[in-house]
Amino acid sequence: MTAQADTVLRTHPEDPALAYHRGGKLAVSSTVAVRTSEELALVYTPGVAAVCRAIAEQPERAFDYTWKSSTVAVVTDGTAVLGLGDIGPEASLPVMEGKAILFKQFGGVDAVPIALACTEVDEIVETVVRLAPSFGGINLEDISAPRCFEIERRLQERLDIPVFHDDQHGTAVVALAALRNAARVTGRELADLRAVVAGAGASGVAVTRILLGAGIGDIVVCDSKGVVHDGRTDLNPEKAALARDTNLGGVTGGIEDAMRGADVFIGLSGSSVPEKAFTGLNPGAVIFALSNPDPEILPDAARRYAAVVGTGRSDFPNQINNVLAFPGIFAGALKVRASRITEGMKLAAATALADVVADELTADRILPDSFDERVAPAVTAAVAEAARRDGVARL
Amino acid sequence: MTAQADTVLRTHPEDPALAYHRGGKLAVSSTVAVRTSEELALVYTPGVAAVCRAIAEQPERAFDYTWKSSTVAVVTDGTAVLGLGDIGPEASLPVMEGKAILFKQFGGVDAVPIALACTEVDEIVETVVRLAPSFGGINLEDISAPRCFEIERRLQERLDIPVFHDDQHGTAVVALAALRNAARVTGRELADLRAVVAGAGASGVAVTRILLGAGIGDIVVCDSKGVVHDGRTDLNPEKAALARDTNLGGVTGGIEDAMRGADVFIGLSGSSVPEKAFTGLNPGAVIFALSNPDPEILPDAARRYAAVVGTGRSDFPNQINNVLAFPGIFAGALKVRASRITEGMKLAAATALADVVADELTADRILPDSFDERVAPAVTAAVAEAARRDGVARL
Repeated sequence: MTAQADTVLRTHPEDPALAYHRGGKLAVSSTVAVRTSEELALVYTPGVAAVCRAIAEQPERAFDYTWKSSTVAVVTDGTAVLGLGDIGPEASLPVMEGKAILFKQFGGVDAVPIALACTEVDEIVETVVRLAPSFGGINLEDISAPRCFEIERRLQERLDIPVFHDDQHGTAVVALAALRNAARVTGRELADLRAVVAGAGASGVAVTRILLGAGIGDIVVCDSKGVVHDGRTDLNPEKAALARDTNLGGVTGGIEDAMRGADVFIGLSGSSVPEKAFTGLNPGAVIFALSNPDPEILPDAARRYAAVVGTGRSDFPNQINNVLAFPGIFAGALKVRASRITEGMKLAAATALADVVADELTADRILPDSFDERVAPAVTAAVAEAARRDGVARL
Repeated sequence: MTAQADTVLRTHPEDPALAYHRGGKLAVSSTVAVRTSEELALVYTPGVAAVCRAIAEQPERAFDYTWKSSTVAVVTDGTAVLGLGDIGPEASLPVMEGKAILFKQFGGVDAVPIALACTEVDEIVETVVRLAPSFGGINLEDISAPRCFEIERRLQERLDIPVFHDDQHGTAVVALAALRNAARVTGRELADLRAVVAGAGASGVAVTRILLGAGIGDIVVCDSKGVVHDGRTDLNPEKAALARDTNLGGVTGGIEDAMRGADVFIGLSGSSVPEKAFTGLNPGAVIFALSNPDPEILPDAARRYAAVVGTGRSDFPNQINNVLAFPGIFAGALKVRASRITEGMKLAAATALADVVADELTADRILPDSFDERVAPAVTAAVAEAARRDGVARL
């Protein structure tokens, strides 16, 4: 052990995670044998030249003859890491490595952590465009809002491989799957539900968008200043667009006003919501309090106001966990060499995820367990099929 | 098999390398187990947060708790790939993957291919600086001269991790090791030798520099226009510097003039050299004809003019092969967390490599075999020790 590592352990003696992470959590290995000079001459010079020439003739062949076909970059700038905020690229690496492990374990996807030493939108976009030839997809991670919206949009315009900000869309897919099954378990249709989304950051915006895409009846979005409506002048472009597309009833005011008469509360606010606000929910309501580590309302309290309660935490029932979505989404996209991830692919992922446990539903089990081996294959197949249907598959 | 892949195989039926490379040659895998919710909570949220916080306090701890301590980026822009030239980033990937395999197999180093979609010096430098937090070292590869010199120099100034252009320094280290043993086998001292280096690109410049550092008597460098001397006005900055530091005898003219009375010929020219030029070499000369795939002179002819002959090819004796150097050089640098790779570390690598077979020398065996298991540990240890001696080790 190094003197420095020893110091860390002495200053953090309480935490087994530190010991678990020593030396990192990932390795790069060869999938072909190199035991003889002949094999060396195939893997490297001179044999590799024929492969280079074949790809130079047609760059798309990189999918056939390199790891590009199975590999994504997990790209962050370290500005919005977990609940820790802007902790910089080096400190974000353990999360990106963890993500890479989950990509491999659940989706068979090779993932490479790329923590960037820049935070300007232009710089991040240019950097990712430049390193994209090595990868079959780009998973954006823990990049703060609203920069994350522009970065994702511009990368999607520039690149012909999937670009997917998991904090937005992974969360959205799993939340939609959970809501589908919560509606099933309470005997209702999505189109009949009125929902409140608390939080208009990366995940709040994305959840709202996917719920709209899934045909939910009406949504009211709240940010820290209250209800997002088109009378407000302090909205960034994403929130202004939400104001146009949501809030059919023209609600104004605060979170309590939004929640009065709602059927669904989805919290992605990073703060608590006064318990009083929940008293306005309709009977048989659904509460997903997804802020981590501290939910907007703790499950014990939430159950007083709702028939189904979920959080982002593994120590409560109904964990809304991105790991149920992103491995299968990228595996499906890579399988058919999708040029992008469409709304249809995300909706298909949510439906497939929900359907895995459709016959096993209870109010405390609306989603599969993280280790449920049926999940990733189901999501992969649904996403690949949707990619073909949406015309973005190249295979 | 895809229709496209099928087409490739039909158009390249002769080449087993294509089949060998199908699907790529690398995988990313986890070094820790994730079998239970408890392990998932350690590897990912919430456990990973403690690791993030420890690194945020002191970014250097990324070496303790992430893969940074064992991982290098193999960075190219695809402009000078093998003998194929500027074939672009996608087509360079099979070489970078092969390199990554050799890094792992011989040095235990995790290497990630990064093929960049940009060729401007400024863009490459900025991009590599931005992605550096994820890596413990940067191996530059197959970037054309003279851009490679400026890129490497500027990255070394900007980063506190080793930046090493293998085409320059890997070749230089192995060529010096080979020359040390060629001198031994012919009973001479390096300081007494007069050498000609044909080629003043990336590897020609680097070989000349390391030979100067090793104390060789005199060197004359030739480029495609002839002898590099300080009367020429067409020299780029690297060649102008070489003109000042070499050619003690003030030779002018062409390659034949340079080789008259020389003891050593090292070819890195990418073209053939007229056999007539070799007739001017002194008795007992050394010829390293390192251009690939076609040496400056074939070994059968070279033996008429030299006591020791080497090439870059595995199908002739005395292969001067970078794989003998780069895995151990990076393994040694990473082992002590070196902030850079010094001239002393390169010279130490060459000496250690030469010494592996010092007791087994013949004219047809001046270097160890590529699979000699003694090589990487010897180079690693020598490089780590030299890093400490040169004050660039952080461990």
